Amino acid sequence: MRIDLNSDVGESFGRWELGDDEAMLALVSSANVACGFHAGDPTTIGRTCRWAVEQGVRIGAQVGYRDLAGFGRRFIDATVRELTDDVIYQIGALQALAHAAGGSVTYVKPHGALYNTAVHHEAHAQAVVDAVAAVDPGLPVLGLPGSALLAAAEAKGLRPVREAFADRAYTPEGTLVSRRESGAVLHDPHAVAERFARMVTEGDVEAIDGTTVRLDVDSVCVHGDSPDAVAMARAVRERLEAAGARIEAFS
Amino acid sequence: MRIDLNSDVGESFGRWELGDDEAMLALVSSANVACGFHAGDPTTIGRTCRWAVEQGVRIGAQVGYRDLAGFGRRFIDATVRELTDDVIYQIGALQALAHAAGGSVTYVKPHGALYNTAVHHEAHAQAVVDAVAAVDPGLPVLGLPGSALLAAAEAKGLRPVREAFADRAYTPEGTLVSRRESGAVLHDPHAVAERFARMVTEGDVEAIDGTTVRLDVDSVCVHGDSPDAVAMARAVRERLEAAGARIEAFS
Amino acid sequence: MRIDLNSDVGESFGRWELGDDEAMLALVSSANVACGFHAGDPTTIGRTCRWAVEQGVRIGAQVGYRDLAGFGRRFIDATVRELTDDVIYQIGALQALAHAAGGSVTYVKPHGALYNTAVHHEAHAQAVVDAVAAVDPGLPVLGLPGSALLAAAEAKGLRPVREAFADRAYTPEGTLVSRRESGAVLHDPHAVAERFARMVTEGDVEAIDGTTVRLDVDSVCVHGDSPDAVAMARAVRERLEAAGARIEAFS
Amino acid sequence: MRIDLNSDVGESFGRWELGDDEAMLALVSSANVACGFHAGDPTTIGRTCRWAVEQGVRIGAQVGYRDLAGFGRRFIDATVRELTDDVIYQIGALQALAHAAGGSVTYVKPHGALYNTAVHHEAHAQAVVDAVAAVDPGLPVLGLPGSALLAAAEAKGLRPVREAFADRAYTPEGTLVSRRESGAVLHDPHAVAERFARMVTEGDVEAIDGTTVRLDVDSVCVHGDSPDAVAMARAVRERLEAAGARIEAFS
Repeated sequence: MRIDLNSDVGESFGRWELGDDEAMLALVSSANVACGFHAGDPTTIGRTCRWAVEQGVRIGAQVGYRDLAGFGRRFIDATVRELTDDVIYQIGALQALAHAAGGSVTYVKPHGALYNTAVHHEAHAQAVVDAVAAVDPGLPVLGLPGSALLAAAEAKGLRPVREAFADRAYTPEGTLVSRRESGAVLHDPHAVAERFARMVTEGDVEAIDGTTVRLDVDSVCVHGDSPDAVAMARAVRERLEAAGARIEAFS
Repeated sequence: MRIDLNSDVGESFGRWELGDDEAMLALVSSANVACGFHAGDPTTIGRTCRWAVEQGVRIGAQVGYRDLAGFGRRFIDATVRELTDDVIYQIGALQALAHAAGGSVTYVKPHGALYNTAVHHEAHAQAVVDAVAAVDPGLPVLGLPGSALLAAAEAKGLRPVREAFADRAYTPEGTLVSRRESGAVLHDPHAVAERFARMVTEGDVEAIDGTTVRLDVDSVCVHGDSPDAVAMARAVRERLEAAGARIEAFS
Repeated sequence: MRIDLNSDVGESFGRWELGDDEAMLALVSSANVACGFHAGDPTTIGRTCRWAVEQGVRIGAQVGYRDLAGFGRRFIDATVRELTDDVIYQIGALQALAHAAGGSVTYVKPHGALYNTAVHHEAHAQAVVDAVAAVDPGLPVLGLPGSALLAAAEAKGLRPVREAFADRAYTPEGTLVSRRESGAVLHDPHAVAERFARMVTEGDVEAIDGTTVRLDVDSVCVHGDSPDAVAMARAVRERLEAAGARIEAFS
Repeated sequence: MRIDLNSDVGESFGRWELGDDEAMLALVSSANVACGFHAGDPTTIGRTCRWAVEQGVRIGAQVGYRDLAGFGRRFIDATVRELTDDVIYQIGALQALAHAAGGSVTYVKPHGALYNTAVHHEAHAQAVVDAVAAVDPGLPVLGLPGSALLAAAEAKGLRPVREAFADRAYTPEGTLVSRRESGAVLHDPHAVAERFARMVTEGDVEAIDGTTVRLDVDSVCVHGDSPDAVAMARAVRERLEAAGARIEAFS
C-alpha cells in the first residue's frame, strides 16, 4: 500500500516568508514548488529545489494565475493563449532552477484559483494541459478526480493524477464542499489523520452527510502554510506508516 | 567573411507593442529575446520564438534586472545570489517557450543596465556567468570586448562572444563613448552602414578622435526599437552582403 | 447644447508609449487618466496631468483592476474589500500627481474590465462607489446608462454621469452590442461623427436593427489608442461644433 | 522631556504578513506606513491606518523604491524625475487611504535603500524633498541627522526631523556603523532600552569606540519586523516613561 503526500512549498517572496519548507520537505514525497506568478521569487525557488533534492522529494511545478497581490487565489479571465503561455513560462523557469539544484521537474499542479477553476472551466483546464504537453508530454498532471483538468489531461495523453484532501469535507457525490459553507475545512489533527488513513487504506471517506464515498486517490495534499502545518504533517505521516502505508512519490 | 547580426526582440508587454519583430527577424541571424523581467510577456515571447524558428534565426536569452517600470535600464543593487537566480529563472522560462515553438535557446546576452554594469561590476558579471553555467555550460555569452562579463565567461569555460555597435562612438581605447556625451550615438543610416562594413571587412573602426581602433568582433548589434529600425537593418544587411560578408549566426 | 468629450490618456508605461495624449488633450474636455494599476507609471501620469492643466481639460481617475500584464481588460475576482481599497489607492495617487501639476481630480471612471463588470456585477460596482465616497463624495462617477455602477452611485448620493460610445453598435434596448458579435464596433470616421452629432443634438441613436433608441447622455467617449484616434477625434469635434454643440466638461 | 517613537508598519503584502502592527501601534507615537512600492497592498494600508487612527498614532508616508521583490532594500538608479513622481504617487495613495480611515498623513520617511541612499546621494535626496514639497510643504521629513536628505529638506523650507536608532552602533562622528561591520546592530533588549533612555534624557550615545557622541534627536526608531519586536518596544517605552519621558508625536 503506497501513497504520495504532496505539499505546497516555495511560496515565500523576497522579505516575506511563508511556511517552514525545510521541515515540510522531510515529511512529504512531492513538493509543489511555486513558480513566481502567485508566489516564489527565484532565490526562494532555487533554495526550495535544493532542499527537495537533498531530501529525495519530487519537484512539481505549482503553476498559477499571474497575481502576486492576490496570491493566485483570484480567478483571472485570461485568454487561453495567455494562460497557456503563462504556464509554459512558469514550468520552464522552475525547470532551470531545479536543474541548477541537481533535480528536475516531474509533474505539474495548478495552484489556488487556477486549481479550482480547472475543475469546471474547460478552456482554462485545456490551457494548462496544452502548456504541459508543449513542454514535456511525460509530465503527469495533479488535480481533483472528476475535474475538467484531469479529463483534458487524459484526452491529451498526459497521465492524470488524482488528489484528495484529508482536511476538507466531501459531498456525497465526492466533490469538495465549498469553503464558503460551514464545516468545509476540518481543523482537528487527530480527525484529519484518521481520514488520511482511511482514504489510503480503505479508499473511501465519510461525506458531510455521514454517507461513505468511494475515492480513488493517487496523492493526498498536506497544507503547508498554517502555523501547525508541520505538526499536522508529522501526525499524518506517522498515522499512515502505522497503518502500513508507504509514503512514495507518484512521479 | 562571416558576421552575425543580433537584435533585441520580444520586448512588447501585454497591450504595449515595441518594435516590428517580424520584419526584423527576416534581417538578422540572432534574436535576443526578452525574458519577462525587463520586457516580454509570455505570449509575446512565444510568438517571437515562433517567428525566429520560421526564419531560421537563433534564439538568445536577453536577461535583465527585474524592472518592468524601468525597462531594465536602471542599475539595481541586487545581491549576487538574487541576480544569479533571476538569470537562471529567465533563461529557463525562455527555454520552455522556445521549445514549445520548435526551437531552443543557444546563447545569452544581458540587457540594458545589466549589460553596462557587467562591463565593470565583477560580482554582477560573475552572477550572469554562474547562472549560464548552471543552466547549460554550452551556451555562449554575448558581451562587450574587454568586459568583466566576457572575462568571467572565459574563466568559467563558457564561450565569450564579442559584440560591436555600428551606431555608437568608440574611444581610442576601444570602449563605448558614454551616452551622456555628445556624439555618442550615430543617427545617419549611411554612415552607420559604412561603419558596419568596415568593422566586418577590416576589423577596425574610426574612434571619436579620428584614430583607428582595432575591433575583433563576432557579432554586431542592430537596434530594433527606433522608428526606422527595420530600414536601418535592411541597409546594413545589404551593405554587408555587397561587401561580400555572409550573415550567419555565431551559435 | 453642450456635451462633454472624454478620452483615456496616461496609458503609457515606462518605455512603452501608447496614444498621442498631448494632441488628444487639445480636443476633449475630460481626461480619464490611468492611475497605475492597469497602465500609467507616475511620471507618465504627472506629465499627462500637466498637459491637461495647460489645456484646461478636467482630470478624472481612470481606475482599474490590478493587472498591468492584461491592461486591466481581464476580470479579476477580487473581494469587495480589496477592490474598494485598490480604487481608493488609485484615486489618491492621481490626486497627488494632479495637485503637483496644478490641477485636481474631478471625477472617476472605471477602466476596461472593471467598467464592463460594473455594468452588472453589483458587488464590484458597489466597491467602486464606496471607494469614491470614501475619498470625496463630491466626485461624479462616469458609467453606462442603466449600469449597476450608476445605480449604486445614485443610491450613495454621488452624481452619476451617463456615457455613450459613438463607435459602438447599440441594441434596441439601448445597451452595447458585445464586442464578440460582428458589427459591434464602427470604423468609418464619417459615420461615427454623424452618430456623435445625432446623439448630442437629437438624443438618440440608430440601433443595430435599424430602430431608433433614445439615449440621455452627459458625455461621449473618444477612443484614444488607435492609430487614427486623433484624426477621428478632430473630425468628431468639428462635426459637433458645426452642429452648434459646445464641448464642455461635465465636472 | 518628550520624545517620539516611530515604527515601520503596513508592510504586509496580500497573503504575506509581516509584523504585529496592531500591537506595535499601541506602543509608538508615529507610524511609518508602507505605501505599496516596497510593501503594503491597499487593504493592508487601509487597515493599518484605521488602527493608527484608533490609537491616536500619527500616520507617516514610508516611501521607497519600486521594488516589491527586494522589499525596497536595493538601490535603484532611478532618474530624479522618476523618483520624484514615484514619491508623489506613494504619498497621495496613502493620503486617500488615511483619509478614508478618518486620519491624515502628517510626515514622510524614506524606507530602506532610499533612506540610506538619501544620506549621501544628493539627487535622490532632492527628489524626495521635491516630491514632499509638491504634495504639501507642511509635511516634515524624517531622516538621519547630517544627511543630504535633511539638508535638502531644510533648504526647501520643509521641517527636518532628526532620527536616532537605539539598536544601532554609532561611529565617533555620530553616523551609523555599516551593517556589514560586526557589532553594527545591538540585540540585547536591556542594553537597547538603556541607550534609548540615555539618548532621550542625556542627548548622547556611547559610540562604538567607547567615546560619547552628542545626538540631537526628535524621534527614535523602533524596529517592527523582528520576532521580539513588540516585547522590545514595550521594554523601551516602559524604560523611557520610568525616566520621566513623555512619548509624543513630533507631527
